[in-house]
Amino acid sequence: MKKDQPYRCGLVPALAVIGGKWKALILWELNSQPRRFGELRRLVQGISEKMLIQQLREMEADGFVHREVFYEVPPRVEYSVTPLGASLNAALEPLCAWGEQHMQEIEACQQP
Amino acid sequence: MKKDQPYRCGLVPALAVIGGKWKALILWELNSQPRRFGELRRLVQGISEKMLIQQLREMEADGFVHREVFYEVPPRVEYSVTPLGASLNAALEPLCAWGEQHMQEIEACQQP
Repeated sequence: MKKDQPYRCGLVPALAVIGGKWKALILWELNSQPRRFGELRRLVQGISEKMLIQQLREMEADGFVHREVFYEVPPRVEYSVTPLGASLNAALEPLCAWGEQHMQEIEACQQP
Repeated sequence: MKKDQPYRCGLVPALAVIGGKWKALILWELNSQPRRFGELRRLVQGISEKMLIQQLREMEADGFVHREVFYEVPPRVEYSVTPLGASLNAALEPLCAWGEQHMQEIEACQQP
């Protein structure tokens, strides 16, 4: 890695953009197809409306999510991944597969 | 995925065990070799002593990190990854590579 990089390891910026519990999960649900707000709300289990709005705004500002308004009656808004978002999703795939593989072990740990 | 799985997606448990800013970074620094506490403290930039102690304890309890005491004079304590920790590290590799590749873009977003 270059000397003048303030990040010593690529995981630091990657975790910085994932930032917390929700962003990776939202991005993941957009992987296969564009989604409307209500769909995302159902797919990302446990997220509040306020939190989903906030996270989508940040992800749009950071260039991971594209928001498109279709001027129909009633108007339709769809969220989709940008190429940058898609590249992050691809990088998350092995982590998702790991989680599926080790789900039972992890659940056993996480339960009080 | 099986119907009786409470987790709909493998990312949920994976992010649950990474849990926050530090664990993935600590685990990552143990990837190549066992480390002593002081080494980890230096390698994981910005972590406090208290936080590193707490995170290592949780990761040991969850089976990701092995702590070994060598009864020398002075005694030496080394932390290393378990096979489960190593498998998680392997799953984090593409995310790390993604972060390295997109470092500049991300920094531009994260700066105020």
